[in-house]
Amino acid sequence: MRMAELSRVSGVSVPTIKYYQREGLLPTGELSTPNQAQYGEAHVRRLALIRSLLEVGGLSIAEVGVVLSVIDTPGRPTHHILGATVHALTPAGRGEEAGEEYKQAIDDLIARRGWRVDRSNPAHAVAAGVLARFDQLGQRQIFDAVDAYSRAAEVIAEADLAAVAATEGRDARAETALLGTVLGDVLIGALRRLAQEDVSAKQFPPPPK
Amino acid sequence: MRMAELSRVSGVSVPTIKYYQREGLLPTGELSTPNQAQYGEAHVRRLALIRSLLEVGGLSIAEVGVVLSVIDTPGRPTHHILGATVHALTPAGRGEEAGEEYKQAIDDLIARRGWRVDRSNPAHAVAAGVLARFDQLGQRQIFDAVDAYSRAAEVIAEADLAAVAATEGRDARAETALLGTVLGDVLIGALRRLAQEDVSAKQFPPPPK
Repeated sequence: MRMAELSRVSGVSVPTIKYYQREGLLPTGELSTPNQAQYGEAHVRRLALIRSLLEVGGLSIAEVGVVLSVIDTPGRPTHHILGATVHALTPAGRGEEAGEEYKQAIDDLIARRGWRVDRSNPAHAVAAGVLARFDQLGQRQIFDAVDAYSRAAEVIAEADLAAVAATEGRDARAETALLGTVLGDVLIGALRRLAQEDVSAKQFPPPPK
Repeated sequence: MRMAELSRVSGVSVPTIKYYQREGLLPTGELSTPNQAQYGEAHVRRLALIRSLLEVGGLSIAEVGVVLSVIDTPGRPTHHILGATVHALTPAGRGEEAGEEYKQAIDDLIARRGWRVDRSNPAHAVAAGVLARFDQLGQRQIFDAVDAYSRAAEVIAEADLAAVAATEGRDARAETALLGTVLGDVLIGALRRLAQEDVSAKQFPPPPK
């Protein structure tokens, strides 16, 4: 199909498609004549992926570029591509580095759960940074929730990897890992808010009308 | 203290403090003379809260304004203020409305968990929207993870409410609910990525070197 039809099928405007191409998010079409590029199903699929990462996942164009370049790098084994996807998706550089006390608290948590993970995973610094913020904001009582959060994270990760394992093929697995992680964060946040309403109504019953 | 000292203590520049005041995020100081406002500990604390919501939580200035206005509204019972905080924190309007099929899937999930929650909670639409995206992107196998996600959400929400219950006073509780939800999303996402690395290494062992 031509660019105009790709736009119609995908619901993405022609200038936006051209912008994604300039940013390296979408491969150019195959030239059928020197001035006429042809697009296929892979382009439609890629556009849907880009829109979801931007609109639902809340990623920036630059972040989408990073995660797609991970998917598009050939020849990595599955564990590496999952790792690289997750690393690319971890927001880095938010605020200053956390103190050793908070990194140690995450190390201790990892040891309690028996996870084979260390500080090389960028999520370690993110987790330590949140603990530092809680402390700074006088919210140390939230530290008591962290063991429950990590048990929950384990349940989530096992379901994540089961979904990846249920997907056939290296590229499709990378896409499942990517979408499951980015959109899954939004889904888990939404389910958390639904569960909070239920638990809150039990714990702090609203006054009778 | 004067504005200059508030800036020094909080690490936030004077123009930025004035910007927050114009946007209604930070109350003005008490006038000691017609041209001299005085600031106190409440201002320092509020600035730390604003910075955390912006830098760690990734909220926009407008979103910070909405959640702070919820905290600042006097006279609501605890369950209502928690609900209002959570509602204000739920990203709305990302993408179009999900079809009935996906809303029904969330209703069914809620019924299976026995949660006393309905479609009036904006997180319901967010969750249904993510399911619709997964389906559109050919990732229906991720639907199988949703029951595990909802069990995890319940564990998280119980820990959330325990942290709120451990906090004394209505305003402090609202602040704990707010920070626990916004920064907690980031923490839970980070713990999920750490757990994913552990589970992935077991499920997809890297090739021996």
